[in-house]
Amino acid sequence: MGEGRSTVVKENAVRVALLLAAGRGLRMRSTRPKVLRRVGGTTLLERSVRVLRQAGVERIIVVLGYRADDVVATIKDRKLPVEVVVNPDWESGTASSVLAGLSQIGERRCLVVMGDHVFEADDVRRLIQTPAGNVAAVGRSEQPVAESSTRPNRIRLRDDGSVAGLGPDLDEYDGVDAGLSVVDVQDVLLVTYRERESWLEVRQQLLAHGCEMQSREVRGLWADVDTPETVRALERSMWRRYGPKPTDGVIARVLNRRISGPLTRLLLRTRLSPDVATALAFAVTLIAAALVATGDTWLMVAGGLGVVLGSALDGVDGELARVSARASRRGATLDTLLDRYADLAVVLALVLATGATRTAWAWGFAAAVGCLLISYVHAVGRDTDVRLLFRREFRLLIFALAAISGFPLWGLIAVAIAANVDAVRGVALLLRALR
Amino acid sequence: MGEGRSTVVKENAVRVALLLAAGRGLRMRSTRPKVLRRVGGTTLLERSVRVLRQAGVERIIVVLGYRADDVVATIKDRKLPVEVVVNPDWESGTASSVLAGLSQIGERRCLVVMGDHVFEADDVRRLIQTPAGNVAAVGRSEQPVAESSTRPNRIRLRDDGSVAGLGPDLDEYDGVDAGLSVVDVQDVLLVTYRERESWLEVRQQLLAHGCEMQSREVRGLWADVDTPETVRALERSMWRRYGPKPTDGVIARVLNRRISGPLTRLLLRTRLSPDVATALAFAVTLIAAALVATGDTWLMVAGGLGVVLGSALDGVDGELARVSARASRRGATLDTLLDRYADLAVVLALVLATGATRTAWAWGFAAAVGCLLISYVHAVGRDTDVRLLFRREFRLLIFALAAISGFPLWGLIAVAIAANVDAVRGVALLLRALR
Repeated sequence: MGEGRSTVVKENAVRVALLLAAGRGLRMRSTRPKVLRRVGGTTLLERSVRVLRQAGVERIIVVLGYRADDVVATIKDRKLPVEVVVNPDWESGTASSVLAGLSQIGERRCLVVMGDHVFEADDVRRLIQTPAGNVAAVGRSEQPVAESSTRPNRIRLRDDGSVAGLGPDLDEYDGVDAGLSVVDVQDVLLVTYRERESWLEVRQQLLAHGCEMQSREVRGLWADVDTPETVRALERSMWRRYGPKPTDGVIARVLNRRISGPLTRLLLRTRLSPDVATALAFAVTLIAAALVATGDTWLMVAGGLGVVLGSALDGVDGELARVSARASRRGATLDTLLDRYADLAVVLALVLATGATRTAWAWGFAAAVGCLLISYVHAVGRDTDVRLLFRREFRLLIFALAAISGFPLWGLIAVAIAANVDAVRGVALLLRALR
Repeated sequence: MGEGRSTVVKENAVRVALLLAAGRGLRMRSTRPKVLRRVGGTTLLERSVRVLRQAGVERIIVVLGYRADDVVATIKDRKLPVEVVVNPDWESGTASSVLAGLSQIGERRCLVVMGDHVFEADDVRRLIQTPAGNVAAVGRSEQPVAESSTRPNRIRLRDDGSVAGLGPDLDEYDGVDAGLSVVDVQDVLLVTYRERESWLEVRQQLLAHGCEMQSREVRGLWADVDTPETVRALERSMWRRYGPKPTDGVIARVLNRRISGPLTRLLLRTRLSPDVATALAFAVTLIAAALVATGDTWLMVAGGLGVVLGSALDGVDGELARVSARASRRGATLDTLLDRYADLAVVLALVLATGATRTAWAWGFAAAVGCLLISYVHAVGRDTDVRLLFRREFRLLIFALAAISGFPLWGLIAVAIAANVDAVRGVALLLRALR
């Protein structure tokens, strides 16, 4: 906002990331470059790039080595916003890749990211917004998701949080290297005089030369992905962390997530985009509504089940997006807007199933208005703590039960009353929250 | 967000304001303290306090002198969040009031505000977020709103924007003193050795002692309020600046603002709160809807006119709030939520006026849903540039004309079609804007 504020951030925050993607990853038991390994529905490379951009990194330089052409093809195919540097000498050690990348940078500081690590945007943000100097990201637990076949780099910290020692052989240590670090480019160039070194050795030399190295604790999910076993364990962790939402209500937990979860995990193996999943859920609900609208007993049963399915599928797009690091405001907005039209389609279907009588229209009017008002109050107060009770999956379940049981009018009446009561309650809560 | 960012702001931004309210204001031709003069519906004192709080000032110290008890009574009555310092020596000059106030501050820098000036929060924000030193707010025009009876303090700037000279007698000058300045407390204490000085003289001595004084241009409305003529001219300027909204559509400009404007100016002379105006507009629309719902020809004419009146009154709350510096998110939210219910009441009234037939309910359903969807899309995309065309005053005007002409169903049909087309258009625009 203020002039003073933005100046400071612009001057100090790290803008460029070096993504080390030259290695082969022998332990993956595959001949493909390690960064093209798919984890949680997306390649390690694409995930890293997305997370770095979400965190505010402006330029990403990917250093390639092993089968660079394959990785370049993927970068072009996926239109990843990165610059590429090929390090022909990649087999001599990670330090040579860092040096190859640093030569492209006109910056004072740089974020160095191991291409075979998984990490979250919030942790990147904390690193790049440090005001100056070298900074290492420190994980508190030794095996974040699964036993790793390599020994992690242990880190010993001083009382002031700065790094005292770094390496796999430390006996006393406070955490492990999480694969992300901010470095002062001049410091690194100063200490790297031999090329056949690992990035670990370069950083050990930084410490040996007395360069200050701060630390930041990693708070989110992170992992060093080096074996197929780690991938499986990591995907389970991702699922637990990103699948359900903290705001999930009881119906989401006991019904919808149990339908959407397995489906999402299946779809993560495909390249289906979250937006397509949104459209599919919308289409399922529209078809279900059409079945309900016939008023035929058995078609209404089928339609009611379809409404439940559509409601559960509505969770798939978000799960897909979050697990594969593709969550976007646009995707969430598309979802929320189509949800409103899907709700209205089901209300209309129940009105028609009741014979479109005056009574049916009147209750349908009240039900539609109640559903929209709940969503409206939610949208107006989306940055407050106000939570509405009569959530979408609840409303759709009542509509579905009404269709299945052959009493469409009762579904409209129940939702009309509950939704409008909840909307008025939401208005009162919102006004109190803004006081 | 980041750790580096917030630290910097906390360390440097000015947190405390000294509001100089000790003077009598002889030129106001009144025996009341000048800061209790009402301008644009609120006293100068209350306006200053509100604007300073909006700008992020954490502590406000009001220095009182002339009839301090009266001002204290107002502060208590209006529950203004300020601390009070009484300067018994107020007649000896403004510098004594500044010194009396500075003695209360444990801060390095302080904002000094002339109690008889009007200013905007954005300009205060730019001043207090400067990183260090003395800063003067400079107005570019000599008479911002009306010929002042006193000669303004002229300011001469160097090329780097720092203040070179200050005083009413400068022949060459780049702007005038806008009555707001940030000062380094140590600097002021250093140069103020005599008590019988004006605040102008203190600042001239700052310059004479070689203290750096930066400048910030005032971009918003400001004024030195010293005569009844200035008050009238200022209120006209406020009206032009705060009354209409930049997003006003054609109906708002040619119809609604012409009804709401004079009423708002009348209500500014009372103490009516904007929230009460919101409730009144809502009540008028509900009563109008009840008249329309009767279906009686002449009552529908009266109801239709009432709907137009309610639509125009809906602008009064915002105008009142903006002109009297009482705009709040809560007030705007109350307004927007009640608007939705008022819209629905009018739709229901037209359905009932049509005899509540199946056809009327069906079109009423579509009209209500269309109106709510427009508001929903607007709320979801409120931080984007997406603007919907079929605005509230437009919809209500169509409803009103339908009621007045005795064709309520046609009003529902017209709004149902136009609103839903506009909502779909809004969805498409919003998704494109978020791409």
